[in-house]
Formats: sequence, C-alpha cells, structure tokens
Amino acid sequence: MEPRNDFAVAIDVGGTNIRAALVSRDLKLSGENRRRIDKTSPTALLNEMAACATEALRDSLGVSGIGVAMKGYVDTRTGITIASGNLGMKNVPVGPFLEDRFGIPVCVANDVQAATTGELRYGAGRDFRDFIYLNVGTGIAAGLVFDGRLCRGAANLSGEFGHTTVDRDGWPCPCGQKGCLEEIVSGPGIVAQARRKLQKYPDSLMRRSIESGELTASRVFALADRGDEAAKQVMSESAEYLGDGIVNLVNLLNPEAVILGGGVFTDAESFIKLLEQHVRAHAIGEAVRSLRSFETSRLEVDKAGLIGAAALVFARENK
Amino acid sequence: MEPRNDFAVAIDVGGTNIRAALVSRDLKLSGENRRRIDKTSPTALLNEMAACATEALRDSLGVSGIGVAMKGYVDTRTGITIASGNLGMKNVPVGPFLEDRFGIPVCVANDVQAATTGELRYGAGRDFRDFIYLNVGTGIAAGLVFDGRLCRGAANLSGEFGHTTVDRDGWPCPCGQKGCLEEIVSGPGIVAQARRKLQKYPDSLMRRSIESGELTASRVFALADRGDEAAKQVMSESAEYLGDGIVNLVNLLNPEAVILGGGVFTDAESFIKLLEQHVRAHAIGEAVRSLRSFETSRLEVDKAGLIGAAALVFARENK
Repeated sequence: MEPRNDFAVAIDVGGTNIRAALVSRDLKLSGENRRRIDKTSPTALLNEMAACATEALRDSLGVSGIGVAMKGYVDTRTGITIASGNLGMKNVPVGPFLEDRFGIPVCVANDVQAATTGELRYGAGRDFRDFIYLNVGTGIAAGLVFDGRLCRGAANLSGEFGHTTVDRDGWPCPCGQKGCLEEIVSGPGIVAQARRKLQKYPDSLMRRSIESGELTASRVFALADRGDEAAKQVMSESAEYLGDGIVNLVNLLNPEAVILGGGVFTDAESFIKLLEQHVRAHAIGEAVRSLRSFETSRLEVDKAGLIGAAALVFARENK
Repeated sequence: MEPRNDFAVAIDVGGTNIRAALVSRDLKLSGENRRRIDKTSPTALLNEMAACATEALRDSLGVSGIGVAMKGYVDTRTGITIASGNLGMKNVPVGPFLEDRFGIPVCVANDVQAATTGELRYGAGRDFRDFIYLNVGTGIAAGLVFDGRLCRGAANLSGEFGHTTVDRDGWPCPCGQKGCLEEIVSGPGIVAQARRKLQKYPDSLMRRSIESGELTASRVFALADRGDEAAKQVMSESAEYLGDGIVNLVNLLNPEAVILGGGVFTDAESFIKLLEQHVRAHAIGEAVRSLRSFETSRLEVDKAGLIGAAALVFARENK
C-alpha cells in the first residue's frame, strides 16, 4: 500500500478567476493564490492553472494529487473538459496536461459535482445519506447524492437543474426550452426580475442599485427585509418559482436534506425561510416528512470551491 | 452458504386485482392465479394475498422468498405499507404478516420500484448502467437507476415523477400543486384531454368511445393514426407535455436510456416517436448525446408486475 499523503492541491476555476491552495486532510488551507483568467486561448488557461498549482505547492511535501473544479461539462474519467462555454473551452485535456506537468494524479470535475463531493466528505454529507446540494449563483445546478454516493449520470453530466421547466409557457431560455429556473431565479435572473418590477414600482429602493449596476440578489432580499414593496414581491415570487422546482426534486428524489450553496443564498435568511415554507407546503406529504433538513452549506462560501476540489482527490483514495 | 432456491412467489397487487405466480430464475411462470381485491378491510386483503400465494406455491419446492409489488408508499426495510390510498391501507404490516404465515423471507416494494428492479435484472438494466424506467398508466412514476443501483431515497419514496410541475399556472392536482404531469398525461389524464377537445371538435371519432366510456389512451393514438384531427391534437399535445417532464429528467439525471412501461405506452408507436423527438429536440445537447436509447420495456406488459415482484426476491440474494 502506498503511503497516504496528507495534502491535495486544489484548483477552483470560476468564470473570472482561478484560485488555488494547498489543502490538508483536516481542511487547513495554505499557499492560497488567485489570478484573473486569461481567456485568450485554452493553452493560456492551462498554463495559468499550472502556475497557480506551482505556487500552492511551493513548500510542500506529501501531496496526494491535484483536484480541479471547473464550470462546464467535464469527463471525470479522462479529465477532459468537454465544453465550458464561458471559458471558450472545447475538448481540452485539463487532467492529462496537469498530470504530465506535475507527475501526480489529477481529478477534474464540474464545479457543482466537486462542491457536492466536498459536502459529502466535510459538510452535510456526514449526517445525511440522501441529499441534494443545490447551488444557485450565476447559474443553477444540483448535486444528487443517493445512499452516500454522488450520482454522476451516464456521461457525468447530471445536475442540470437550472434547465428544469416549471412554466412551459414562460420566459424563453437560451437552452431552447421555456420557463427554465435559471432564467428566472439565478442571481442574474433575480436581478432581471427586479428590473422588470421597477416598471410598476418606479420609486422602489432597488432603483438606485439597478442604475449603478450594483443590484444583487442579496441586496434585493435586504431591501425586502426593510419593507420595500417591489423587493418583497421579487423575493416572494422567486421563492415560489424556485420552490416549485425544488418541490419537483423532493417528490422525485425523496432526499433527507436539501443543502443550499452559492451566492444567492448568502445573507438570504428571509428568502430561505420562504423557500422552505413553499417546499414543505407543496411537496407530497410523505416526502416532506422525510425531509429532515433544509439548510445552507456549513462550508465557508469562499472556500467551498477549493474544499470541493481537494475532496475530489481525497475521495478517490477511498474507492 | 445456504442452497440457492430457484423459485420466488410473486404477488402483484394492482388497483383492482391481485395476481400471483411462481416465478423461476429464468422467468418461467407457473401457478398463475388472480382474484379481485376485497377492499372491505386491510385484513381481508392480507388474507387474499396469502390465498394467492398458497395457490402459486401449490406444487413447489425450493422457494427462495415472496416478493410483493404494490401501489403506494412502502417501507422496504420493514415491509410495512405506509399508505396506499386506493386500497385504503395505512401502516399495514404486509411483509411481517406473510413472513409469519409462510416462514420464508418476504420483500415488499412499491410497484414501480419493483418493475425497475425487474428491468435491472431481466430487462434494459442488463445493457445500461444509468437509466430511467418511466411508468405511465393510471398514474405516473419513475424508477431511477444510477450506476446499476436503484435509487430509493431517504424513506424509499423516490420516483413520484407524476407530481412534477411543468406548468405552474396549469390544471390543479389533488396533491396541491398545479400543472402536475399526472393530471394531464396519465391514462385518465389523456382521456380527460380528449373529453375537453370534443367541445371544439364535436364530430371527432373519439366521441363514440367517450360516450360508451371505453376511450383509452391507446384508442386516442389509434384514431390519431387514422387521421382524426382532435385525436391528433390530443396525441401531440400529450407528447409535448410529457416530453417537457422527461426533458427535465434527462437534464437532471443524464441517463443512458429511458425505458417506457405501463398502459399508455401499449400500442403507442406514433406517440412514442413524437415523445422521443420532443425530448431530443429540447433537452441539453450534451445530455441528448449520451441518451443512447429511448424504448419500451422488453418485458411483457402483463407479466412485468410479477417479474418485478420476483426480481425483488432474487435481487436481495445478491446483496
């Protein structure tokens, strides 16, 4: 048996930045660094990832592997990123490139599947065998865990919950369907709702933030808490809409827990409360009774990506 | 190691009839019998199940166990039927009762989970690791298989696909939500659509069957094939509606195959073709590419329930 090494290099490739760190098995982060993504070519991005990894690795011995979490469609078995729209990547051999460069095993996964692996190992997954990790930020995706195992799907593409239609006559989505959740209740979706709501409520406190381009979902929820009528409507309509999607999930999958992560759930206590109420009122009674927990992730938001990436490495060893 | 016995007693409890048979490992059925369900009390039903089992068992030796497939919510671990609305059962110890009576192991499961276990062992599951078994008949439910394993959910209630909302402003469902699939595209849902369609098309060929109370989904599809305009509309609208629900499933779960079973898919070639077209046109491209198969179950429709019940017994031995 090979000796167990106590560290993983974690790389989190977002829409704008690459972050990297050395992560220990007990979740201590060191060598953290970040750089803005160079979108000029896939090769530039690969070299940036390697530079970040090198910096994270600087003083370390005993590294078990490199974990990479990135947006898009990733073939976990081969480490090839099949498609990552906003990074302009198509069939880029992320895993093989880094393995070749560093000579240690590399695990690459979609960001939400990585975060779900992090939940399984370090978060809610220690308490629940069947749960849904729901990430709502720029996009919407879900990680599905049954009986303690992440369900990846035939080509490792499971979790496209953002493209769930709950309103077949609704707003058109770039995916071709109508009424997809992502168009309405992702972070940008909620801001777009606020913008439309201003037509009816021109005096809403949301106007200033919209005009300065600084409106976020958290800001909408904060203004709702302060009593702004338009913001209250956006918040409650969002809770109903996203809630209908979660009702579908709960009825279909019968989870013990729904774990919420991503920017939209940061500083969103009232929103989460409305959302849980909606789900418990509308899902099938039997499924609601076994839904023990509806909570935000216990992992720190700004570290969750790195922890997920590291968890990919540590989880693989246990297979 | 105990000797392997080559037979299981299979009991299939439907909405109207109980059926039972002795099923061999190579799917030979013998001792088949059926009786109409006595709904006067849970005890009457339990005794009927025992009588059916006794008849199936008549000349046999080497029975491994009894498998029971029944509608409703079943706790597979304890064998207790938590709720089965149309049978008036609530917390009825089906498994313990039969174990006590016959002295052999009893496995009880929800009918669709049993059918999915049948698919896993004897049907499509031999070719696919990740598939959805979709049953559309009086109700709508799905069995979800990831990586060769049936996903049961926290309390064994997974698969309530019929209560997926795809139209949040749609038709109200007794479950409390609106626009659930079951109200619109189950067998009775399709017949109700036809009834509504007659208002616009009073001369439709569907009228006679409706008036005689004999209209079924298969009949609607047959009349559509013969060119009846109203029937064609019901068929294509049903394919779009159910198709939107399946698109949600395919995007979320990334299956390799969708396997169709239940009465609505019997003699429904044109309908299935429209359905597959809709799913392939509307689901996310990456997920469509890995959807290798969209087909009806290869198990004989009238035996699928018994085969599923027997598979519960044989599958348990392999754990």
